Amino acid sequence: MSETFVHLHRVGFDEVDAAGIAYFARFFIWCHDAMEAMLDPLEGRYAGLVTSRRLGLPAVHVEADFSAPLRFGDEVRIEARVQRIGSSSCSLRFDLARVATGDHIATIRHVVVLTDLTVMRSRALPDDVRSVLERHHVKP
Amino acid sequence: MSETFVHLHRVGFDEVDAAGIAYFARFFIWCHDAMEAMLDPLEGRYAGLVTSRRLGLPAVHVEADFSAPLRFGDEVRIEARVQRIGSSSCSLRFDLARVATGDHIATIRHVVVLTDLTVMRSRALPDDVRSVLERHHVKP
Amino acid sequence: MSETFVHLHRVGFDEVDAAGIAYFARFFIWCHDAMEAMLDPLEGRYAGLVTSRRLGLPAVHVEADFSAPLRFGDEVRIEARVQRIGSSSCSLRFDLARVATGDHIATIRHVVVLTDLTVMRSRALPDDVRSVLERHHVKP
Amino acid sequence: MSETFVHLHRVGFDEVDAAGIAYFARFFIWCHDAMEAMLDPLEGRYAGLVTSRRLGLPAVHVEADFSAPLRFGDEVRIEARVQRIGSSSCSLRFDLARVATGDHIATIRHVVVLTDLTVMRSRALPDDVRSVLERHHVKP
Repeated sequence: MSETFVHLHRVGFDEVDAAGIAYFARFFIWCHDAMEAMLDPLEGRYAGLVTSRRLGLPAVHVEADFSAPLRFGDEVRIEARVQRIGSSSCSLRFDLARVATGDHIATIRHVVVLTDLTVMRSRALPDDVRSVLERHHVKP
Repeated sequence: MSETFVHLHRVGFDEVDAAGIAYFARFFIWCHDAMEAMLDPLEGRYAGLVTSRRLGLPAVHVEADFSAPLRFGDEVRIEARVQRIGSSSCSLRFDLARVATGDHIATIRHVVVLTDLTVMRSRALPDDVRSVLERHHVKP
Repeated sequence: MSETFVHLHRVGFDEVDAAGIAYFARFFIWCHDAMEAMLDPLEGRYAGLVTSRRLGLPAVHVEADFSAPLRFGDEVRIEARVQRIGSSSCSLRFDLARVATGDHIATIRHVVVLTDLTVMRSRALPDDVRSVLERHHVKP
Repeated sequence: MSETFVHLHRVGFDEVDAAGIAYFARFFIWCHDAMEAMLDPLEGRYAGLVTSRRLGLPAVHVEADFSAPLRFGDEVRIEARVQRIGSSSCSLRFDLARVATGDHIATIRHVVVLTDLTVMRSRALPDDVRSVLERHHVKP
């Protein structure tokens, strides 16, 4: 049974910019953190995949729509869903909401490709990675 | 006469990730840096706009396609063009290339909206900002 | 009764440098995060102090000794103690250990000064801030 | 003849914190950037040392005194001096000043150790690295 993966983040003191709101590039880091946390069921987690097996999931395409600003101390709820799983790539969708108000903050999409980091070439998704992704695969 | 704005960046020691390549979220920071540098002709530069006039250009939409990785020490050439100027928003396109080889690395688009930072509402682009953007407005 | 404050951190994918180890400047961010978390008992937390009351605790002195490197995925245990509480300043000591092995990783000291952020001048520690710091004040 | 190495930095939009001033941990990044720039005369620069020769200069001790805050857009002048050169380590001193006013902002010290990154053990400074450091070695 597929289910949304939820990751929480609190906007840090150093994550705001000179406009006083969370700097837009930080949102991509939080989504990457959410993907890493989603992959915790892997043996050795995502760190093991990268460090021991020299495989990774670099982004090849990213899209983001920002609806409302976040400020220092705001709690953010990131709902992550896998929208498509291909032979070597997958599409992740992240919906961000402010916990205190439920306000929708941003929708972010990452397309990542399973990559052999030694030669920097794409490879078929290993079974264990595919299996974790499928848990959060939401058929449209 | 409109012209491309060029901004150079050298990938720093702390900008790579555990995969050994420049972390994808850094690219957005570099493009923002390029936009800031493009706005240097403003009196007090972008910092003056934000700090004294409390106006800013937060991103409402971002898109990125990553073609090839960058590594520590790589010089990146960022070509910035303004693709569309609306009443309060504009679309920026950034083409990134590795200086040493000329390889295309990424294409990134930012849609930014002139925002009154005190009330966080959009506003018409002030004449001086519009004027700088028009210098780099490339009609398609 | 005074007690050590414990904060946990997992070294993120983007926190390592081109040498493959956690970048040294990140350690100061984690310690600042630990201080922020220590101040959670404040009404509105540290974010409320900064945002609503325009008071903050900027560092005026920092010292760090690094004993061993950390890598992507390592869990770090940060023990925070308040070593000295003055009229407007306090000294914090952070001891970092790798959770998996118990290895000592670094000792970091921050001297922070309660500052009125509007005029950027030091001020006496408010009672609520002093009270939280005293909970973790370890007499030498 | 020994001489001070000068590195300039402009405080970026994303380098300030929720207090509206340059975040303290950023200062260490700028000083590291200054050290990297100082090492540009190395063949392949610092990036070549790290990537091709798998040698680096991680910090083992850091000290900082912060005198005055910096804000978005401020230009900072970083004067770097090598204060001591040992067999495998060296001490760097960085004096930071605001360009517009000449105000002293911070003094930062880094003790770095030449390290074989493959085995993470200290090694004697190679002749080319020692030679660059000596150019900026200021006898007390």
